[in-house]
Amino acid sequence: MRLVRIEYGNAPRWGQVEGDTIHLTDGMGGEPTGETVPLEGARLLAPAEPTKIVCVGRNYLDHIKELGNDTGDLPSEPGIFLKGPNALAEPGGTVQYPDWTQNFHFEGELALVIGQQARDLRPDTALSAVLGYTCGLDLTARDLQKQDLQWFRAKAADRFCPLGPWLETDLDPTDLRVQTRVNGELRQDGRTSHMIFDVVQILTYLTRYVTLEPGDVVLTGTPEGVGALHRGDTVEVEVQGIGTLVTHIG
Amino acid sequence: MRLVRIEYGNAPRWGQVEGDTIHLTDGMGGEPTGETVPLEGARLLAPAEPTKIVCVGRNYLDHIKELGNDTGDLPSEPGIFLKGPNALAEPGGTVQYPDWTQNFHFEGELALVIGQQARDLRPDTALSAVLGYTCGLDLTARDLQKQDLQWFRAKAADRFCPLGPWLETDLDPTDLRVQTRVNGELRQDGRTSHMIFDVVQILTYLTRYVTLEPGDVVLTGTPEGVGALHRGDTVEVEVQGIGTLVTHIG
Repeated sequence: MRLVRIEYGNAPRWGQVEGDTIHLTDGMGGEPTGETVPLEGARLLAPAEPTKIVCVGRNYLDHIKELGNDTGDLPSEPGIFLKGPNALAEPGGTVQYPDWTQNFHFEGELALVIGQQARDLRPDTALSAVLGYTCGLDLTARDLQKQDLQWFRAKAADRFCPLGPWLETDLDPTDLRVQTRVNGELRQDGRTSHMIFDVVQILTYLTRYVTLEPGDVVLTGTPEGVGALHRGDTVEVEVQGIGTLVTHIG
Repeated sequence: MRLVRIEYGNAPRWGQVEGDTIHLTDGMGGEPTGETVPLEGARLLAPAEPTKIVCVGRNYLDHIKELGNDTGDLPSEPGIFLKGPNALAEPGGTVQYPDWTQNFHFEGELALVIGQQARDLRPDTALSAVLGYTCGLDLTARDLQKQDLQWFRAKAADRFCPLGPWLETDLDPTDLRVQTRVNGELRQDGRTSHMIFDVVQILTYLTRYVTLEPGDVVLTGTPEGVGALHRGDTVEVEVQGIGTLVTHIG
């Protein structure tokens, strides 16, 4: 099933997409209320209502290499960092190039949204905590990432996490193609099967330490090919079986 | 004014404390509804409803020294990291010693809670974004802080941020004594006037990058004297003009 979150009157609403129609529901992952809206013209919002956005760094070997980090010692555990809900941006939206970075990078990723409270997940049932999968753009101020004590400005600033366009609930995340194009040119082209830690390992790891809440977002890391953005660029993150997240750099 | 958040029936409620009585209000910083509850016996909750908890690391010179970090180059900007709302724990509560750290540390701090949405705050009006001040305990898995890519497990695990017991709204944060006692023994004894970045500087810095929302928490850093906790310890963080946050280590 394809789940969208849209602007509807003054409040965001969730809905299920069937053909050209959105059937509004009584909340995230909820039941249809009978109200419908045409998909065309609907203003899509980031399909999540997170209490936190949990991100995996350095989860593809080729990306570790391209950043010049040591690959002699592969990480024995996922490297995790946080963004707050302030980082979300809607699909098709514009993110202003910050005036405080000189090296603003794209990182296209498979993202997932949690459907039920999860703590101490076991490998065999971990995926049942996932409501659906979507595309994420982990915007990064690469210069400040290297300079700052922690990756706060580099990763967690307002609108540094475009997400969407929707959630696909029936998807096997183990071997999906993840591509990023900038102004139509292919820049990243990886497969989730090349992750060092797969989705199940990420979820079991995270929930040893934190409780994941319904609506929380997990970004699963980026393949190689990251690079600098410029004002006026258009970034497309496409994940196989989901669709394409478009973001304009203002 | 002293603001508390308490368990009341099935839902948390905010209230104003006057003498022995809590006057319940219609939300955080809201107006009294006429309902009252005796303060004695009320079950206090962490006095915040954050979308994010923003923390300042290395904000007292003596603490930088005690961790063995370089002080030749004082930080030119605050070092910021995040916890999620999952990290909150109530005053008087018990935090279990995690079985995945061998060096669990206390860090007593002045905390503040935001009262209104804030972005690009100016120095002369920054404090008006603060609803009130309270005591925070920044629990830290010191061994993993040094080992991990970012301070996720070390700082952001469930219940790693006891907060309370209440908010004091009428307080000048510029020179308050901050003390931490473990089992009654004084371990930290600093003054907020010794911060490298004061509250106004922290708020103007943060809101250059992120929007602070009502209910968000800011921890302002810890003075020297941090140290290891053991199962069965009782930690008290006392901030002058506020009161004492008590946390039991289980």
